[in-house]
Amino acid sequence: MKFSEQFLEMEKYISRLQEKICLSLEEKDEVKFYEDNWFRDEGGGGRTRVIQNGKVFEKAGVNISSIDGMLPEEIALKFRTERTRFGACGISIVIHPSSPKVPTIHMNLRYFEMEKGKSWFGGGIDLTPYFPYTDDFSFFHSLLRDSCNKVIPGSYNEFKNNCDDYFTIIHRNEMRGIGGIFFDYKDGKDKKYFSLVESVGDSFLKLYLPLIEKRRAEQYSQEDKYFQLIRRGRYVEFNLVYDRGTLFGLKTGGKIESILMSLPPEVKFVYNYSPRPGTPHFEMTKYYKPMNWLRE
Amino acid sequence: MKFSEQFLEMEKYISRLQEKICLSLEEKDEVKFYEDNWFRDEGGGGRTRVIQNGKVFEKAGVNISSIDGMLPEEIALKFRTERTRFGACGISIVIHPSSPKVPTIHMNLRYFEMEKGKSWFGGGIDLTPYFPYTDDFSFFHSLLRDSCNKVIPGSYNEFKNNCDDYFTIIHRNEMRGIGGIFFDYKDGKDKKYFSLVESVGDSFLKLYLPLIEKRRAEQYSQEDKYFQLIRRGRYVEFNLVYDRGTLFGLKTGGKIESILMSLPPEVKFVYNYSPRPGTPHFEMTKYYKPMNWLRE
Repeated sequence: MKFSEQFLEMEKYISRLQEKICLSLEEKDEVKFYEDNWFRDEGGGGRTRVIQNGKVFEKAGVNISSIDGMLPEEIALKFRTERTRFGACGISIVIHPSSPKVPTIHMNLRYFEMEKGKSWFGGGIDLTPYFPYTDDFSFFHSLLRDSCNKVIPGSYNEFKNNCDDYFTIIHRNEMRGIGGIFFDYKDGKDKKYFSLVESVGDSFLKLYLPLIEKRRAEQYSQEDKYFQLIRRGRYVEFNLVYDRGTLFGLKTGGKIESILMSLPPEVKFVYNYSPRPGTPHFEMTKYYKPMNWLRE
Repeated sequence: MKFSEQFLEMEKYISRLQEKICLSLEEKDEVKFYEDNWFRDEGGGGRTRVIQNGKVFEKAGVNISSIDGMLPEEIALKFRTERTRFGACGISIVIHPSSPKVPTIHMNLRYFEMEKGKSWFGGGIDLTPYFPYTDDFSFFHSLLRDSCNKVIPGSYNEFKNNCDDYFTIIHRNEMRGIGGIFFDYKDGKDKKYFSLVESVGDSFLKLYLPLIEKRRAEQYSQEDKYFQLIRRGRYVEFNLVYDRGTLFGLKTGGKIESILMSLPPEVKFVYNYSPRPGTPHFEMTKYYKPMNWLRE
């Protein structure tokens, strides 16, 4: 299909962002990203980049894709539109550090357009820490606030609340982490939303590198690691039971390995687990719910 | 609600079966089952029995439950019936052995009735091995054939095909194991289906104990264990994305820990994994698809 100018601009942006983020993460670790270029029969493809068993990153994926094709009937119905060609491009990042002192992070930025019809932006960043370093959570949220509000004043609150709703493991009535921001269906013809996407994307390294630097050398106990493995199990529960992107991908025949690169490398599922009272893990479990992390 | 005779008979059967199976598994291991009795506000409850970190069994759950309440609207619609009270009882077993030489097994037997309306039986057994001991698979399937066909001649084939269909990880186009039997919606007023349930239930120890005895003392390599952890990841993918019982339970507010006791204790998710050609694991992956395991 003939893509819009906006589509091509977004493609360029995510490609540069992938490059920048990968170079920077490689500097932090001692391994190189493994690259997988893939193509889709129906149109388009992607560039998957993965680290496994790095020194800092036990598993990290920084993927871009840009695909086009006919809108599946089911989705056309959902969007109340006729069947038409569509294009979608985006970047998707999930990083599972080895140390339980360094949080897991996820970012996704995407653009979608239909040949006859609307176009929109969506995206978000959320953090899944395993240790109650509440100053880090405040740092994370205040940078997110700045990167949203400088483009669209007041937007952080809306996106923060969306994120709290979205990343909830409903059957456990708890969040998978401490949230972040999430937005969707933002008018693709309104330039301010592209600026928002760029602002969020550009904030990724500013948010995450300091958390890595601050915590990577800290020692941790077996009990810390155990807690991380249990919480990674909750991450799996969320991604496989609720995450719309994952389920959409699995059920429409996306590239399985790229979709499931979000799953943590090693996980435990323990019957009736609860952390010992008085431990940092016990404290941490109190924070997996909607909270105001801003400090002023 | 006032339960039928059949309901009470089924309740008694699953309670005795739980007792028998737990005693027998405890004999094989050096730990005792931990017991959790639970009650449901709306009516009924269950008895969950769990082993964790046993010598043979890394995680094993043998659960019974018997509940009653008002049929949720959504399910009444699905069954094309008015909203009425219902009762459901069943036994659910999942055993994850520590050794990759001993297969994971799952059994479920259940009975469902509505105050105004139909009643039915459902159930099944399936095996998830991690090592290509094809003689064991034939032994397993031929005992299942006998236990089905002696009650309902020719039924094994039907139930075996159901099982191959049901326990498929659709997004990977592979089965989670080597199948077994699966049946559902079998007339609750027809005594032969209760006999079928009893015959399958009674076959559990006859099927599984020999597989434990034969393989428990065998040595295994790190690579064998690694393969098991990867395949357990596929088990998680199946249970959280496709298993109707799991999703029904999670989405209708069942007892979360009892539902998720089916998840393996420790799991790996590795990007782009494939077993080395020439290894037993490479051979094993050829068997995760519908095959005829009968030998005559």
